[in-house]
Amino acid sequence: MNDVLPRRAHLITLEGGEGAGKSTALATVRDCLQAAGCTLVVSREPGGTPLAEQLRAMVLHSSRQDDADERLHPSAELLMVFAARAQHVAEVINPALQRGDWVLCDRFTDSSFAYQGGGRGLPVDWIADLERRVVGFVPGLTLWLDVPVALGRSRVQGRGGVPDAIEREHDAFFERVHAGFAARVAADPQRFVRIDASVPLEQMVAEVTRAVNAYLAQVRR
Amino acid sequence: MNDVLPRRAHLITLEGGEGAGKSTALATVRDCLQAAGCTLVVSREPGGTPLAEQLRAMVLHSSRQDDADERLHPSAELLMVFAARAQHVAEVINPALQRGDWVLCDRFTDSSFAYQGGGRGLPVDWIADLERRVVGFVPGLTLWLDVPVALGRSRVQGRGGVPDAIEREHDAFFERVHAGFAARVAADPQRFVRIDASVPLEQMVAEVTRAVNAYLAQVRR
Ligand SMILES: Nc1ncnc2c1ncn2[C@@H]1O[C@H](COP(=O)(O)OP(=O)(O)OP(=O)(O)O)[C@@H](O)[C@H]1O
Ligand SMILES: Nc1ncnc2c1ncn2[C@@H]1O[C@H](COP(=O)(O)OP(=O)(O)OP(=O)(O)O)[C@@H](O)[C@H]1O
Ligand SMILES: [Mg+2]
Ligand SMILES: [Mg+2]
Repeated sequence: MNDVLPRRAHLITLEGGEGAGKSTALATVRDCLQAAGCTLVVSREPGGTPLAEQLRAMVLHSSRQDDADERLHPSAELLMVFAARAQHVAEVINPALQRGDWVLCDRFTDSSFAYQGGGRGLPVDWIADLERRVVGFVPGLTLWLDVPVALGRSRVQGRGGVPDAIEREHDAFFERVHAGFAARVAADPQRFVRIDASVPLEQMVAEVTRAVNAYLAQVRR
Repeated sequence: MNDVLPRRAHLITLEGGEGAGKSTALATVRDCLQAAGCTLVVSREPGGTPLAEQLRAMVLHSSRQDDADERLHPSAELLMVFAARAQHVAEVINPALQRGDWVLCDRFTDSSFAYQGGGRGLPVDWIADLERRVVGFVPGLTLWLDVPVALGRSRVQGRGGVPDAIEREHDAFFERVHAGFAARVAADPQRFVRIDASVPLEQMVAEVTRAVNAYLAQVRR
């Protein structure tokens, strides 16, 4: 089903579980693109526009253990992340790609398959239908930062701060998220590069640099 | 497609364009149900839970002419009203129906077909898919308050206040909304009672009373 959607060569996304190193790797990818003279827009999901960021805040700050707060229903979570994505695609991603710019995004549709599909157990055919209707394309390159759940969690805890609604989930949830990413990679292996994100930082940065430069060489050939 | 969804006999909804008289008729329906000894929950859409009301505010207060505000994309609007509906169904409507109570709702799924389908031109098969996945049922009775667009508009203007994002739309939009309601009624005539809402208030109230009492007699037989 996914193979039917066209690729956008100038769109690169970073995917992975909590604390995998997406935001860290994003700086590396940005440096590679800039060194190659690419004009680029850096963004993130859920978010990337004021309205989408408002939806992000609602998703991440609801369903607290706290009884006073309303629990966010899984279907509502899915619809809100796709509403945010509709805004992001229409207002930011499509205009940038139409200008010929590059777009680098911290999370994108694959995260919906992993978190709302794998994690929450919502039907994958529904998510694929939303992807087709709301987005209509896939990135040219997606780096999957693959890290064992426990290691990612310990990195996030090391970073400090109050955990959000997703971060408060249990390990079983994150194992399903991990399986969700693995299934996406298996279904479209050409688009993904799996990065071993359990290795030391410099080694991960080197792997990311190599993957991005190889992709640039291929796209610009 | 719609006929496949089961009816919830204890759910009554009010539908119609701007200023048709839904909120006015709601009080009449409530009085009829209470006179018949029904325990009932009165609600509205988009809204009905704190999170859903937050989504309602985002939908109604975006896409202002004002350049500073971000224009809400039609797909995002559809997904946000269905996200609100998912919360409303899970937190309010289903629990009430499971208790055996009645639910009376000012707007429901038919408004998505009329406004996002007819008005915005989004694919009706998408809305039907969301209805099936997110709601899974239709009301037992829906009163369609049918009023010519111009008359409804003049009533809303008479009420005063700052128009919201929907109310600022043009007549052509509301004509498409009206056609959207008419198409829903044609597809499932048994569920709907069309109320001529262009007549004087007391006459409309009498028609609504008659329709609700006839329905109660039928359901309780
Ligand atoms: N390969 C690595 N080895 C050691 N520490 C790392 C490595 N990659 C990232 N870190 C550290 O782990 C923490 C989480 O990394 P980062 O914030 O980049 O992850 P993330 O995937 O963006 O997380 P989130 O899902 O919360 O956004 C940071 O403190 C970062 O410095
Ligand atoms: N049949 C009628 N004749 C004359 N005036 C009416 C009639 N029905 C309603 N009105 C008046 O028109 C105005 C709009 O009615 P109401 O608020 O019930 O409509 P509504 O369908 O709920 O509108 P909205 O879509 O804005 O919620 C109110 O001032 C109401 O008193
Ligand atoms: Mg991050
Ligand atoms: Mg009203």
